[in-house]
Amino acid sequence: MSHLGELRVRGRDASARLGVLQTAGRPLRTPAFFPVFNPNKPYVTPREMREDFGFGQLIANSYILCRNPHLKEEALEKGLHSMFDFDGVIMTDSGAYQLFKYGEVEVSNREIIEFQREIGADIGTIIDFPMSSKLSYPKAKEGTEITIRNAEEWAEMREEIQGTAWLGTVQGSVYEDLVESCGSRIASLGFDYFGAGSIKVALERYDYRAQVEYFLRVRRALPPNRPIHFWGIGHPATFAFFTALGADSFDSAAYAIFAVDGRYMTVGGTLRLQELEEFPCNCPICMGHTPKEVRALPEEERVRVMSKHNLYACAAEMRRVREAIRGGWLWELVQMRARYHPKLLEGLRRAFSSFKEELELREPFSKKSGIFYSGEETRLRPEVLRSKELLARVTEGERFFHSSLFGRVPIGLRYTYPFGQTHVPGEEETDEKPSDEELVRQILQYQFGSEASGSFARIRLARSRATGMPRDVYDGEVRVGMVRSHDGLFVPGLEGAKRLLRAIPPPGSRVVVKDERRELVARGGTVFSDFVSSSDPRIRPQQEVLVVDDGDSLLATGKSFLSSQEVGFFEHHPFVGIRHHVLSSAQGD
Amino acid sequence: MSHLGELRVRGRDASARLGVLQTAGRPLRTPAFFPVFNPNKPYVTPREMREDFGFGQLIANSYILCRNPHLKEEALEKGLHSMFDFDGVIMTDSGAYQLFKYGEVEVSNREIIEFQREIGADIGTIIDFPMSSKLSYPKAKEGTEITIRNAEEWAEMREEIQGTAWLGTVQGSVYEDLVESCGSRIASLGFDYFGAGSIKVALERYDYRAQVEYFLRVRRALPPNRPIHFWGIGHPATFAFFTALGADSFDSAAYAIFAVDGRYMTVGGTLRLQELEEFPCNCPICMGHTPKEVRALPEEERVRVMSKHNLYACAAEMRRVREAIRGGWLWELVQMRARYHPKLLEGLRRAFSSFKEELELREPFSKKSGIFYSGEETRLRPEVLRSKELLARVTEGERFFHSSLFGRVPIGLRYTYPFGQTHVPGEEETDEKPSDEELVRQILQYQFGSEASGSFARIRLARSRATGMPRDVYDGEVRVGMVRSHDGLFVPGLEGAKRLLRAIPPPGSRVVVKDERRELVARGGTVFSDFVSSSDPRIRPQQEVLVVDDGDSLLATGKSFLSSQEVGFFEHHPFVGIRHHVLSSAQGD
Repeated sequence: MSHLGELRVRGRDASARLGVLQTAGRPLRTPAFFPVFNPNKPYVTPREMREDFGFGQLIANSYILCRNPHLKEEALEKGLHSMFDFDGVIMTDSGAYQLFKYGEVEVSNREIIEFQREIGADIGTIIDFPMSSKLSYPKAKEGTEITIRNAEEWAEMREEIQGTAWLGTVQGSVYEDLVESCGSRIASLGFDYFGAGSIKVALERYDYRAQVEYFLRVRRALPPNRPIHFWGIGHPATFAFFTALGADSFDSAAYAIFAVDGRYMTVGGTLRLQELEEFPCNCPICMGHTPKEVRALPEEERVRVMSKHNLYACAAEMRRVREAIRGGWLWELVQMRARYHPKLLEGLRRAFSSFKEELELREPFSKKSGIFYSGEETRLRPEVLRSKELLARVTEGERFFHSSLFGRVPIGLRYTYPFGQTHVPGEEETDEKPSDEELVRQILQYQFGSEASGSFARIRLARSRATGMPRDVYDGEVRVGMVRSHDGLFVPGLEGAKRLLRAIPPPGSRVVVKDERRELVARGGTVFSDFVSSSDPRIRPQQEVLVVDDGDSLLATGKSFLSSQEVGFFEHHPFVGIRHHVLSSAQGD
Repeated sequence: MSHLGELRVRGRDASARLGVLQTAGRPLRTPAFFPVFNPNKPYVTPREMREDFGFGQLIANSYILCRNPHLKEEALEKGLHSMFDFDGVIMTDSGAYQLFKYGEVEVSNREIIEFQREIGADIGTIIDFPMSSKLSYPKAKEGTEITIRNAEEWAEMREEIQGTAWLGTVQGSVYEDLVESCGSRIASLGFDYFGAGSIKVALERYDYRAQVEYFLRVRRALPPNRPIHFWGIGHPATFAFFTALGADSFDSAAYAIFAVDGRYMTVGGTLRLQELEEFPCNCPICMGHTPKEVRALPEEERVRVMSKHNLYACAAEMRRVREAIRGGWLWELVQMRARYHPKLLEGLRRAFSSFKEELELREPFSKKSGIFYSGEETRLRPEVLRSKELLARVTEGERFFHSSLFGRVPIGLRYTYPFGQTHVPGEEETDEKPSDEELVRQILQYQFGSEASGSFARIRLARSRATGMPRDVYDGEVRVGMVRSHDGLFVPGLEGAKRLLRAIPPPGSRVVVKDERRELVARGGTVFSDFVSSSDPRIRPQQEVLVVDDGDSLLATGKSFLSSQEVGFFEHHPFVGIRHHVLSSAQGD
């Protein structure tokens, strides 16, 4: 149990979460990029990071501060926020990277942990043992043991070091068993934040496949109620990808390191300042200079200017990633970005083909945006694989349309997500129109299982006069729900939910609420994770669910925010937002 | 023969040209986007277009000016440049769009042509007859007849209307025969600039396939020494695509029309202002406002601000497209952008599969950048299809490596473009190393044909000590050329060229220079298009060629800028840049 809050998930798409984490001092909004601030190389100041770039967070290396007597004194005296003139979230790194680079550090894990708390880091870290993809198995094993020992030391200290959120990183390089065992041990220690250390060498060689395998193994081992930080991810072309896989934050100094080398970051790849004639970007730097002018600047000014452009590129891409989550087009963005380098496309394919279950578990059941086919990997997208599988539930009807992505789709699903919202080059929408019976029965089966087709005895469908599109659904004279226009899914009313409950055997589509929370929910209160005694393991985010008590009596209907597999990990987090409830609400409704 | 200059091609990639056109007053740099300036809706002023957005050109509708007595008077009195306070290139539209929209216009073709000249348009247009994809064949035929009649009227007037560059547009909608006949007639009239009118309705429905077919049919009918303007192309996501197909300029008011509707342009697609929480862009507008702030602005100010963002997006993409041409990664950019909508991907596939010859003709033989696989359409790229075909020339050797894109590739080509510069997800470079013989003979065959393998009797290759990569090539003790490091192609010296000439039968790899230009070229002068009596029809841009006189005696070696099929259309344009020449240069060398 943490001393600080867990991640509050406010939006999701793919495996990404739009979240808020309450650190001791300040809220952190995720997904977030932490630019590295090195007080010895202040190309971009913390104040600029906040005011010009909009970053609400940064990361600094506490080991660098600790080793320089002047910096150390200032940090201890003023505290980091005042020293940096930065009122956002400050994460501190521990010297782990120096341990990786030089084989040793001149500070103990205990010392650096205490130091981070003393200087007022919002998020602190232990000394883990970063690894390259070239590390031998015995060395990697030794490294995970150091990592675990330091994490255990942290756990023993935790009562003394409250006030800071603590991040524990999982190591193990390319060795699956090491990642798993390190992961489960780190997870069990109850950090506030978890880390995945990007695999060095592999990253420099664009070996995204190795990063994908490692990251998704780490994620598998960690509880979903805590954010995961992916260390050292700094190229904006990769932000959408790693966010979609479930990374909640990144940090990097790449913006500055690239600047030193004259490398100009874009989401479509890295360009060379030396070769540019026009800047293909609208950032304040690029609008104010020509490449020729930047090349002619004195070195320090050139590095500063290039650092700023690179950081603008990072900041804009993070905003775009968050908008993509909000809009439900994150995989579309990832597939676009994957074209920046064939190795990223390879990494994406690997994620889709080797981690099907992990990705499907978090994938929303419905989205605001449709699916755009953009290459053969589209066939492996989690929504595509899942909906193909769910088609087996649909036994009613004999008319189909053909989709190269989904195969034979019952005609009643032609307006239903994702079948009706998918665009494949060269494929036109079917002209055939489903009957009311086909439409309602097939949607019910797709959404709630084969048995749901018998829920309503006398189906009648009201359609929009203007468009002919389905609207309200009736069973005889009783309105039982509606077909939602944007995704063609059935949204049951209370009468519909009662009939569905009778037709579908438990635990289908149900969230069972504990007795003590029964009335609260029946009166319209949100179902929090800790209210739940059990739920249908097939529940995914953005799905219509039936909320019942332990006698299977209907309390409410609503929309899920979490997968059923995630619920147990959350201490107190909204699980179902209520649409309709059986008792009048406390304050009136 | 034109009164003004022809397009000077300074760089090329795919079918795109980085060019300069000398209009009467000012140079136009292509590819160029002409933002529409409507004096009745001056959301962005011409001065802003130039100073804030960097546009050196704009377009205004002369018909709108002509119909408003105040505007007409001012335009006639001051001239357009002074009236608009814009010293760049001004193109004027003719009222053709109004003809399309309302069926008639209140001005004659002759009047509007004269008016454009009088107000000082740099580029003027006739009244053509724009068409929708829904137009019947008889109506489309009538429209092409009107278009041709007006063009012929222009041709009769041409002596009276000098000083303006004149643009003639080819129409014909979806009807291949109409496009062809209209195209050849318009081409024969000798305009300074040509136009393709985007097919209405189809464009609004994202029917890029129809645009591709129409545009490439138009292009086929037109001489390559004049630029082609593609009317009404205004979404930045499509600029790379149409540029790669050979469009040299575009114009559109979409930036403002989208702004009125709250549509926010990005190269990844259009977003809705209403739904945005963060602006995913670094332009001055987006850095200075939040979406919420923009939504709260008074309507006129909101449209102005959104117009500016949209125009910034257009301007940056045009800069990016030009950089992509310079860097040889235009198809990579197109393939990225094609993921913005499946219908654009469909259009790209159609271009690759139905216009193989047209695209191959302009495709450079070698590039600075390699080929990134980014989806199945990569297999149809012009460079890929061509190089697979050229592999048939390579008869030497028995060792191969396998490439999923190219099939069985002789080992000697492992460093040669495009085989050695292609990246396919999941494919690693071969470890096998070619012998000197394999390397040189196979490169010669690939580049100059099967007979070239016998050019050098005793092949010896000097390799880099550091990397083992091939460098200088010797025949016995005589240096005959080198293998260029970035593309692994053979660059002959004079000794090598002489031996190649003996081995390869004419017209292989030859450019034959007219007798009167013989000495100029032999002393190192650039081979201009009008110096050439014939050339190998297989010559493409960026290819090593042998320059000979009509007795097949070597004059020089060099690199081509044009395809042999293009040369005859150019009046006076560089065709071969000389590397080595047989006589000492006039001013010393």
